[in-house]
Amino acid sequence: MSLHQDAIVVDGLIMADFGREAFQAMKDGGLSAVNCTCCLWEDFPTTMKAVAQWKAWLAEHADLILQVHTTADIRRAKAEGKVGIILGWQNTTGFGDYLPFVRLYKDLGLGVVQLTYNTANTVGSGCYETHDGGLTDFGRELVHEMNRVGILVDLSHVGGKTADDAIRWSRKPVAYSHCLPSALKAHPRNKSDEQLRFIADKGGFVGVTLFPPFLKNGPRSTLDDVLEAIEHVLNLCGERQVGIGTDFTQGHGDAFIAYANRDKGHARSLTRFGDVTMPEGMRRIEDWPNLTAAMERRGWKEERIRRVIGENWMRVLEEVWGA
Amino acid sequence: MSLHQDAIVVDGLIMADFGREAFQAMKDGGLSAVNCTCCLWEDFPTTMKAVAQWKAWLAEHADLILQVHTTADIRRAKAEGKVGIILGWQNTTGFGDYLPFVRLYKDLGLGVVQLTYNTANTVGSGCYETHDGGLTDFGRELVHEMNRVGILVDLSHVGGKTADDAIRWSRKPVAYSHCLPSALKAHPRNKSDEQLRFIADKGGFVGVTLFPPFLKNGPRSTLDDVLEAIEHVLNLCGERQVGIGTDFTQGHGDAFIAYANRDKGHARSLTRFGDVTMPEGMRRIEDWPNLTAAMERRGWKEERIRRVIGENWMRVLEEVWGA
Repeated sequence: MSLHQDAIVVDGLIMADFGREAFQAMKDGGLSAVNCTCCLWEDFPTTMKAVAQWKAWLAEHADLILQVHTTADIRRAKAEGKVGIILGWQNTTGFGDYLPFVRLYKDLGLGVVQLTYNTANTVGSGCYETHDGGLTDFGRELVHEMNRVGILVDLSHVGGKTADDAIRWSRKPVAYSHCLPSALKAHPRNKSDEQLRFIADKGGFVGVTLFPPFLKNGPRSTLDDVLEAIEHVLNLCGERQVGIGTDFTQGHGDAFIAYANRDKGHARSLTRFGDVTMPEGMRRIEDWPNLTAAMERRGWKEERIRRVIGENWMRVLEEVWGA
Repeated sequence: MSLHQDAIVVDGLIMADFGREAFQAMKDGGLSAVNCTCCLWEDFPTTMKAVAQWKAWLAEHADLILQVHTTADIRRAKAEGKVGIILGWQNTTGFGDYLPFVRLYKDLGLGVVQLTYNTANTVGSGCYETHDGGLTDFGRELVHEMNRVGILVDLSHVGGKTADDAIRWSRKPVAYSHCLPSALKAHPRNKSDEQLRFIADKGGFVGVTLFPPFLKNGPRSTLDDVLEAIEHVLNLCGERQVGIGTDFTQGHGDAFIAYANRDKGHARSLTRFGDVTMPEGMRRIEDWPNLTAAMERRGWKEERIRRVIGENWMRVLEEVWGA
């Protein structure tokens, strides 16, 4: 049995065109658990419908996937040869600005929520906003409610000041679930060494993404570029607080990318990605074992590999969710 | 016929417990038109239901009220002895962050929209927010869309930086529909002389409110206190850009005040108002003629009175809505 097959493997961010094909790809990729985005720009009723759709999928495809409420569920998924599904959001719009919905969604399996997606909302500012006014007063209330019920605060697409405010304000560890270092490629979505050190110093977590527009060599990136980025983050944050959040959008077409890249899904376009072909060797979710193999080829010790591909995610999720 | 009976009288802000009783009070108060709040914290579907309720009221109480789309409708209401109803919002939540809804609501009679109500939303910050990050990028898009379709931008409860940004950004005159000068009473809801001068210099409008917590003598305020405040604003802004927005909440009880004073209607309480008894002589909407009479007693010229009680509102509304 290969290390990849034996290990707990957690992908901290996938936003595929979900359905049986994507679930099969996750299983073929040897994933124990995946943070699956089910809110991007949507309001409360639309997000609740997306969660209902997930409940239907979890019943219909129970041979492949299993819902995750705790890290024990992830170990159970692994043991049963299934993929653990963590419901996650990349925006807080799904709460409809109603604090009692935080507890309610937690009960439905919501495990990770990003505070803002690219632009300003009622909670704070986004990474593409002209001016970042920081975490709002309502944002403070929301973060503490997420802390209380046990939902991980994700800051990947959040503006710099809002993210720093949230790191300081949160009573539990927070995460950049999917990001890359701006030291290797300057981009408003990437994080400076200072930002990466800061979240780690505060007990937080950094998931490295494979989204090519944020990698040094763009769509011509290889697994070596990815490994270089992970090692950069490991050097800053240490071996216990770093993982992977691929950001696969497998199955989606241009219309979805355009939706994701417009404010609220329909207003102005926010940035230009160009070609979003994933790195050679990791073109598809099924290729995940290649990433682990690349770490082995690079001479990483087994313990470090196990941590980065899954055990570190397990630790931060347990800290936030409870055992 | 008294001056009040003869003049166009516009109340730039009423948030009563609407229904026949309130409409009768408006008629008894000699009002030609009223900006009636139908969105405070509510989301898109709830706000649309409130507008539908207004359509029902307009049909059911057509002997008393008439919908206003243009200033000609206000003159028609006056001629027919009815009260012109301007649908207005104190928040932008009713748009559900969907820009095409701006045009749609305009067609339904929405004439005035405040960008934020007390706290931060997707558009900007509020007057009780700890930190004001200014007008957001989406806020810029929204203001220009409101300019384009002809909806007046109201900044009364908006944070200082967001308001200044909007005054600069808007392509049409904007308003503080209901506010008081902080020179007479320090309060986060009141506006400094500098702010009042700034909006007037940019062609904007200031409606003076009668809400007692913001008046020098609080619930013990009299019509003289109100007149002093109006005169203060007139001295800063000139005689053609000042009007009245009473902020009557007639018919509502404590539960409504608590709802208005909590972020999003349910989260933390924002401020303490204490006693909100309206000024002596202007306790109820029906007392409006007393305000005009007080201006006459104070020795104001007829022309100034006509402007302040209605004609100035007519001018700014026509500038924004079109003839």
